[in-house]
Amino acid sequence: MKQFTVTPIGVIHTPFKEAGGTPIQSAFAEGVEGVVEVFEEYVPGLKDVDGFERLWLMYWFDRVAGHKLHVTPYMDTQPRGLFATRAPSRPNPIGMSPVKLDRIEGNKLYIRDADMLDGTPLLDIKPYSPKFDYFEVSRSGWMDAVKEGSRTADERFHT
Amino acid sequence: MKQFTVTPIGVIHTPFKEAGGTPIQSAFAEGVEGVVEVFEEYVPGLKDVDGFERLWLMYWFDRVAGHKLHVTPYMDTQPRGLFATRAPSRPNPIGMSPVKLDRIEGNKLYIRDADMLDGTPLLDIKPYSPKFDYFEVSRSGWMDAVKEGSRTADERFHT
Repeated sequence: MKQFTVTPIGVIHTPFKEAGGTPIQSAFAEGVEGVVEVFEEYVPGLKDVDGFERLWLMYWFDRVAGHKLHVTPYMDTQPRGLFATRAPSRPNPIGMSPVKLDRIEGNKLYIRDADMLDGTPLLDIKPYSPKFDYFEVSRSGWMDAVKEGSRTADERFHT
Repeated sequence: MKQFTVTPIGVIHTPFKEAGGTPIQSAFAEGVEGVVEVFEEYVPGLKDVDGFERLWLMYWFDRVAGHKLHVTPYMDTQPRGLFATRAPSRPNPIGMSPVKLDRIEGNKLYIRDADMLDGTPLLDIKPYSPKFDYFEVSRSGWMDAVKEGSRTADERFHT
């Protein structure tokens, strides 16, 4: 099957210079401030974005070291199938984070709940909507057994 | 900034052969059956996936016709900034759908709530977790004013 090319539309600035200590989810990064810099040519697409309290950012995990199909997640102690985890080292290392939008100034989105590395290439911004993105579930696999897993990353998946 | 290459890890089979009439969200595709075929080399990564009731599928909108930065969403009647919409025609046309997992047999995931076109290239599978993916919001921009918008697509964004 053919391959496809992704082109960053911006870059995400956060306080996190390395994987170690970076929150592994927006839900574990409450209040952490970041700035999303959108490249000028895409700025017209930001119209109406300020009406949304939360946004999905999609981005490229640009500092992961390849991928393995079995990984031990940060929150767990035993190897799991990669696709049963949110580990960053994936065949297509695309991340998604539901961040809070504080305000937009020109080409800059001031966000909170930032959980990505500083300098991460931005691929897309989509509005978060509980109507689309929230579903009740009765089973969350191995995560159901996690009592007090780590909420921050270490270097296991990174170069 | 450099570009990145994505390589499909599978293909998604659904009843939808063309955009017209295809549900625009999983939330509007309740019960619609699909089959996710994962290419053999990635099958080891499916271990433990069957514990999850719902999965994020990430995929490539392979039949959209370029992108514009202002679009009129299916659910609305006036142009909006692209990044304030979930329209498929994006600079990086990556879609995400939270589908329900019925069962896995070998390299096939039998799913429900399928809202993508038949033959869509699969990029990633991530476990859905309300802990990570659900946030209360008080504002959803232009969507808050939509009373009875369309729940299915037409051909406006497609080739």
